[in-house]
Amino acid sequence: MTSHSELLHRHAVPAAPSPAQGLLGQFGVSMAYARGEEIYAQEEEADLVYQVTSGCVRTTRLMSDGRRQIGSFYYPGDVFGLEQGGEHRFSAEALSDSVVQVAKRKAAVLAAGQDAFDRFMAQALMTELERTQDHLLLLGRKTACERVATFLLEAADRAGGTRIDLPMGRQDMADYLGLTIETVSRMVTQLQTGGVVDFPCCRQFIVRNRAALQRMSE
Amino acid sequence: MTSHSELLHRHAVPAAPSPAQGLLGQFGVSMAYARGEEIYAQEEEADLVYQVTSGCVRTTRLMSDGRRQIGSFYYPGDVFGLEQGGEHRFSAEALSDSVVQVAKRKAAVLAAGQDAFDRFMAQALMTELERTQDHLLLLGRKTACERVATFLLEAADRAGGTRIDLPMGRQDMADYLGLTIETVSRMVTQLQTGGVVDFPCCRQFIVRNRAALQRMSE
Repeated sequence: MTSHSELLHRHAVPAAPSPAQGLLGQFGVSMAYARGEEIYAQEEEADLVYQVTSGCVRTTRLMSDGRRQIGSFYYPGDVFGLEQGGEHRFSAEALSDSVVQVAKRKAAVLAAGQDAFDRFMAQALMTELERTQDHLLLLGRKTACERVATFLLEAADRAGGTRIDLPMGRQDMADYLGLTIETVSRMVTQLQTGGVVDFPCCRQFIVRNRAALQRMSE
Repeated sequence: MTSHSELLHRHAVPAAPSPAQGLLGQFGVSMAYARGEEIYAQEEEADLVYQVTSGCVRTTRLMSDGRRQIGSFYYPGDVFGLEQGGEHRFSAEALSDSVVQVAKRKAAVLAAGQDAFDRFMAQALMTELERTQDHLLLLGRKTACERVATFLLEAADRAGGTRIDLPMGRQDMADYLGLTIETVSRMVTQLQTGGVVDFPCCRQFIVRNRAALQRMSE
């Protein structure tokens, strides 16, 4: 576990905020994390708020016996670390080399005003809640095949093309989808055999039949 | 599906807001719903916000083939229906005879001020997000026995006693826990046989060994 002040000095890189990044783009500090590096730990004090500039971030919760649930994957523009005061309920790690805007909540409030910060937080919380609710439905009621199809469809829609690079491996997919790695691999093979997607390598796939992928995700 | 204006006139009961209800207690309208009655439908316009005064409310999402996931159960003091504009992603129904404070968002903003409303929403969203994240971990990584034990422990902690009335039946528990009704019943029997809880009837249980229930929920 690294202290916040240490983090703020260790990685600071020149800030290049875009208008789209809003409040954190204006008042945050730009920090670089190497692939696999921890951004914050589960149960660490939650006094910072984060927004991805480039790369991909994963949030993870460990149970006492080591079972792991991935909360979400965050891409450029996404806000994470939204716990209100207290402690982080998930840890966060960079899945690939990433740049993240980081701001102390109190500093953001001072700089932007309490009302602007509250509006920023309400919007970020709403987005996070909707994603978590979709994830909940997937875990509660979808079959293994539907889960994997949903995951690939979302990645494709997010990337906006037909050839999609995945920043995460099969174990990360399994720990997000509430499946074993063997089941994820079996479902991927099934989707390949059916001509729905093609995996030229483990971290890249091509959508061959989007309509079929959509049907299989529902 | 019932229109909002119709609802606002049909059920209005004398308001008895307590200070603890905060913003909706001050600016909402008190409405009564009979057991099983719909409060709002999935995909209905989301321009109202709700807080339970008495009773219990269930939110539900149906998949196109009829599979059902319960989002959450809401008890007195809980805020629900938090979708931002657009449509409700879940429906809401009264599980038992319930009284709910209801306010139009625009009216609450006018009455309380934008800033007070934003703060109210941010707090309510944070609570909802934390509950949804706990629910996610339960669905993603907990065994059937752990799920049922977690559910009963939360109900016991919430009610604050050892003899707890449940407003929901086995099917509702199953649709919340991502299990079949048969599995829920089997796990309840297992917990009874182990002397952890006792079910004098379907809708009431007694905690016999809280420490064991706690251990089994993790």
